[in-house]
Amino acid sequence: MVRIGILGATGAVGQRLIQLLEPHPEFDIVTLTASPASAGRSYRDAAKWRADSPIPESVTDIEVVETAPDAIPNDVDLLFSSLPSDVGAEVEPELAAAGYVVSSNSSNARMDPDVPLIIPEVNPDHVNVLEVQQDERGWDGALLKNPNCSTITMVPTLAALDEWGLESVRVATLQAVSGAGYSGVTSMEIIDNAIPHIGGEEQKMERESRKLLGSFDGAEVHLHEMDVAASCNRIPTIDGHLENVWADTRESLSPEAAAEAMADYPSAPLPSSPEPLVHTFEEPERPQPRLDRNLGNGMAVSAGGFRETDDGVQYNCLAHNTIRGAAGASVLNGELLLEEGWV
Amino acid sequence: MVRIGILGATGAVGQRLIQLLEPHPEFDIVTLTASPASAGRSYRDAAKWRADSPIPESVTDIEVVETAPDAIPNDVDLLFSSLPSDVGAEVEPELAAAGYVVSSNSSNARMDPDVPLIIPEVNPDHVNVLEVQQDERGWDGALLKNPNCSTITMVPTLAALDEWGLESVRVATLQAVSGAGYSGVTSMEIIDNAIPHIGGEEQKMERESRKLLGSFDGAEVHLHEMDVAASCNRIPTIDGHLENVWADTRESLSPEAAAEAMADYPSAPLPSSPEPLVHTFEEPERPQPRLDRNLGNGMAVSAGGFRETDDGVQYNCLAHNTIRGAAGASVLNGELLLEEGWV
Amino acid sequence: MVRIGILGATGAVGQRLIQLLEPHPEFDIVTLTASPASAGRSYRDAAKWRADSPIPESVTDIEVVETAPDAIPNDVDLLFSSLPSDVGAEVEPELAAAGYVVSSNSSNARMDPDVPLIIPEVNPDHVNVLEVQQDERGWDGALLKNPNCSTITMVPTLAALDEWGLESVRVATLQAVSGAGYSGVTSMEIIDNAIPHIGGEEQKMERESRKLLGSFDGAEVHLHEMDVAASCNRIPTIDGHLENVWADTRESLSPEAAAEAMADYPSAPLPSSPEPLVHTFEEPERPQPRLDRNLGNGMAVSAGGFRETDDGVQYNCLAHNTIRGAAGASVLNGELLLEEGWV
Amino acid sequence: MVRIGILGATGAVGQRLIQLLEPHPEFDIVTLTASPASAGRSYRDAAKWRADSPIPESVTDIEVVETAPDAIPNDVDLLFSSLPSDVGAEVEPELAAAGYVVSSNSSNARMDPDVPLIIPEVNPDHVNVLEVQQDERGWDGALLKNPNCSTITMVPTLAALDEWGLESVRVATLQAVSGAGYSGVTSMEIIDNAIPHIGGEEQKMERESRKLLGSFDGAEVHLHEMDVAASCNRIPTIDGHLENVWADTRESLSPEAAAEAMADYPSAPLPSSPEPLVHTFEEPERPQPRLDRNLGNGMAVSAGGFRETDDGVQYNCLAHNTIRGAAGASVLNGELLLEEGWV
Repeated sequence: MVRIGILGATGAVGQRLIQLLEPHPEFDIVTLTASPASAGRSYRDAAKWRADSPIPESVTDIEVVETAPDAIPNDVDLLFSSLPSDVGAEVEPELAAAGYVVSSNSSNARMDPDVPLIIPEVNPDHVNVLEVQQDERGWDGALLKNPNCSTITMVPTLAALDEWGLESVRVATLQAVSGAGYSGVTSMEIIDNAIPHIGGEEQKMERESRKLLGSFDGAEVHLHEMDVAASCNRIPTIDGHLENVWADTRESLSPEAAAEAMADYPSAPLPSSPEPLVHTFEEPERPQPRLDRNLGNGMAVSAGGFRETDDGVQYNCLAHNTIRGAAGASVLNGELLLEEGWV
Repeated sequence: MVRIGILGATGAVGQRLIQLLEPHPEFDIVTLTASPASAGRSYRDAAKWRADSPIPESVTDIEVVETAPDAIPNDVDLLFSSLPSDVGAEVEPELAAAGYVVSSNSSNARMDPDVPLIIPEVNPDHVNVLEVQQDERGWDGALLKNPNCSTITMVPTLAALDEWGLESVRVATLQAVSGAGYSGVTSMEIIDNAIPHIGGEEQKMERESRKLLGSFDGAEVHLHEMDVAASCNRIPTIDGHLENVWADTRESLSPEAAAEAMADYPSAPLPSSPEPLVHTFEEPERPQPRLDRNLGNGMAVSAGGFRETDDGVQYNCLAHNTIRGAAGASVLNGELLLEEGWV
Repeated sequence: MVRIGILGATGAVGQRLIQLLEPHPEFDIVTLTASPASAGRSYRDAAKWRADSPIPESVTDIEVVETAPDAIPNDVDLLFSSLPSDVGAEVEPELAAAGYVVSSNSSNARMDPDVPLIIPEVNPDHVNVLEVQQDERGWDGALLKNPNCSTITMVPTLAALDEWGLESVRVATLQAVSGAGYSGVTSMEIIDNAIPHIGGEEQKMERESRKLLGSFDGAEVHLHEMDVAASCNRIPTIDGHLENVWADTRESLSPEAAAEAMADYPSAPLPSSPEPLVHTFEEPERPQPRLDRNLGNGMAVSAGGFRETDDGVQYNCLAHNTIRGAAGASVLNGELLLEEGWV
Repeated sequence: MVRIGILGATGAVGQRLIQLLEPHPEFDIVTLTASPASAGRSYRDAAKWRADSPIPESVTDIEVVETAPDAIPNDVDLLFSSLPSDVGAEVEPELAAAGYVVSSNSSNARMDPDVPLIIPEVNPDHVNVLEVQQDERGWDGALLKNPNCSTITMVPTLAALDEWGLESVRVATLQAVSGAGYSGVTSMEIIDNAIPHIGGEEQKMERESRKLLGSFDGAEVHLHEMDVAASCNRIPTIDGHLENVWADTRESLSPEAAAEAMADYPSAPLPSSPEPLVHTFEEPERPQPRLDRNLGNGMAVSAGGFRETDDGVQYNCLAHNTIRGAAGASVLNGELLLEEGWV
């Protein structure tokens, strides 16, 4: 069993990480970190557990420690990070320098050239960016990132279409409130309402998707040349990001071929990668957040509503934003690190 | 005062028509029609009044009649129609043939070449298509249509941009449940959910917008050549359609110029046309359905979130779907018919 | 394995019955019935499957038959009924007369003196009312009922308090929309709203609870003498009925004793009876529908918010209305019928 | 015109106060206070305006001052307070001591014997408690309170029934999220959910209602002797508190007599007191928050669902929690202070 720690274990994504990692066949939770105010308390006391399944007994009595190299045992093999990005920006490099391998969901450093940004089913070879990273930074450890939740939802479906030559992508998102964390969206803001802007999210989708679909030549990642323009909306759903995509391709692409390419897109040979990766629906009104977010234990993407356009296809896609889009994405990257010998 | 009748007066849009027409300075409600099952009953009995203001006293005792030429008094000057489209397709031509002038919200016949489809602030000159209509069909009356609610929300903003030469439009909608009528969306379908498909709505937006922005040469309406692709979603809001638009233009267009053109786009010299027609927001998170749907008494459009793209601009727009997008649109068209001497 | 059939298998409760019975260790689904319009079609075609888990493969190709004695195979051992109550009132007696044993969730006949109304953890001995039933009606089969969903939520907690002598109960419910069936509550009715009335529900709670807590002397069930007054509200939640209860008792009862009595209230020795039956919370803000409705696989009741009043205690309770409150209740009664030798 | 100030003008209730007071025929807004961080800024800058009508132009440029006696002009005649209760507890007595008359919505000091707690239609004579207050405290100014929003909703209906002798009241509330302030309830807490506890709210309803219906003998207010037990729930509605009430009375009371007494209960001769005060519905499913919260410009109470119980009646009532239940309640008390010569 791999001994693991969770950085930022008391937050919303931290609690999801515990739900996913506690029963995991390869990982053993030994360390939980949080802010200094929580350090020294039992996890049960430090975390206000809000998940819809009971808090796992094996973690309730773990003593929470500070998120600092000194506070984390040396024999921890792998760290999962769901730190606030400003904290992550400060602490994650310190931990990697101190020899820890970190699979991080935090938004800091995702676009750094020597930090791999990975969806294991899409660009597993980018893990080798870590060699450049260790070389350049002189780290014994390593820092690897998963992308933003709204990016993850779309990119596996785009990856399936790139053999037709993606040129331009327009995407509108309908995002669940859990994406903003437990207190990120007030009820007064969102009941009987929608908010057509999520600060920074459009830019994340536009940049991260080009890095994920870019190519690594052994020295650097070349961004994909497609033009991406996103419009991000918050709506009154709890979990599950739904997205409307227009994908313009160089080669002529039919809706049927697009659906088939997604349905056939391969999973990764890792425990948390679902089979199939992409569920495709023939019913035009699917996928829907409440009905389809839990497909593949929340790790699958689903797609439907394929239609022809003048320049390519349009379709809809969906994924569970706090599982496939956050905690589960980090776990999957941890499995990749293990498989590839970085742990 | 113009003597008016309302066809399909007991439905959701019919009730909105009564809310708008009862206090109207130029119109006097004299006739209300509904299905045969309601005929002979008082309006109070026939309509299950569900609006959030009390039923106007002046209509409660009007005896509802059947939707048929024989049942409507000859001295009614103008009819507003919110009939189901299959009923409208049958009855509206009979009424126009019998000499009645009909301002209709029903979706039938909107794309018929000799039926004007009008937003008075956008294409008031199309009202003269009625001359062609009377000529070809031998009608004494006339039939004029307003577009679909999701189309109306977008088209005034596009009209403001067309001097830069619209080439391609991509639009994703977040539509309120009232757009489907009182029983159109069940609570089990939509709570904690979103539905990425509204039957026929994508096609309506794609075709009607090209007719509205088309040109009338005295003989026929030439559709605008722009390519429009829509993706329509239902979300858990009561009223107000929010839309994300990407507009590609032939001439280079900055976000600032786009916003200014919308803010300056003129109202129509008609009682129900609001001043300004388009409210533009600098705050990127506006407009929002619950906060902004009632601007201009529900007749204004609002827009915000202007950003540059590779080929034009992207922005968001919003309108109240059952006022500007349905009942109010028909009322405004009735005012135009009056102003232009068709009533 | 017991060969079972499901009456009204295409509706919302019918689909829940399939979700619960398909993996059941003792039951084997062999027959599915629906309205004449669905007869002859495969279950996949006849049912519009709307559950949040995929339709079980073992039932997709079963040919749906009419809900009639002639259409159901003779070797079916047990029928579960989720028929509309008017259909149930007509067909269930015919089926029982024809020798079938029916565990029914339909609301008809629940208060008939010779029809047992049962929650297995509360009044399992009432199953012997079936002897009176067969005797009086000359049936070879049998008809047994579970109570209304809002009644089931409350009665196990009241049962735990009855040793203090229940005198008066006041209960306000906050009921989920699924309790009205898939199309029972429109989105226009309930978004940003609540409805303080559910037709017939108050009376069901007031009468059924007194029958459930009544005593069977071998000849008839004597209703409990407590006075029950209910106020039933529909709110915008998908699943889970939450209830505020004031229970006045003859003997003095402390909040602590009430909580302890509920926590200790025994489960039934049946596969679907959860352990514990009642989860008690110390946090006053629990139970909550979204967080707690799935406790015990949706078969547990939860309670919290215990406070002293002048005449007894007040507290809140919760159960999953379509599992513990409907489909699961019927399944549990089926298990009781099997255990007691009626199947 | 009376020169007025608003204490805590940037919060949710503060914004409602501005919406109500800006067009008020007797009051002229001259001073707005907020926390030290906002002092010195224009109101437009200091307040994040979130109401669904535009910010009134007359207040946008007012310079916000600190909530302190020194910062408020001496010639302000009347202060409306929507301060956080801890701030109110400190500052309101200082202001009253400094000679200001304060109509406060803050929850501090409501049960102090020499602080009048008033609903003008119910207990206007309690305003004379201010004589005791000035006498005992040596104040030149005065401090008067309105009750909690959930209390206000119920008490006018109870007042109408007290001629039958109220003995016991049980009340369950379904409260809107706006009652907790703009950020009081997160979307993650309440979408597809309900919370059966609002800290301190049960106690407020139980105590404040007895003070409001109590009698003032010139020296002190004697609490009403009725027993009140409340259970308070938060549900996913924006505005409008709905309540289920059981009222047990000494004299026999029929549902019809209860409804009639409420419908006939008199308004107060003050500008903001609506006519009628209580709307009674015959339809058992009314009142409903979204449909009925704005009756009487949000100042009316509505009631329906009258049923007989063993010991009295049960019924439902509703009021707009941030208008009648908070800002409007303070305004009405300000009108009473003016009418009674305290301003």
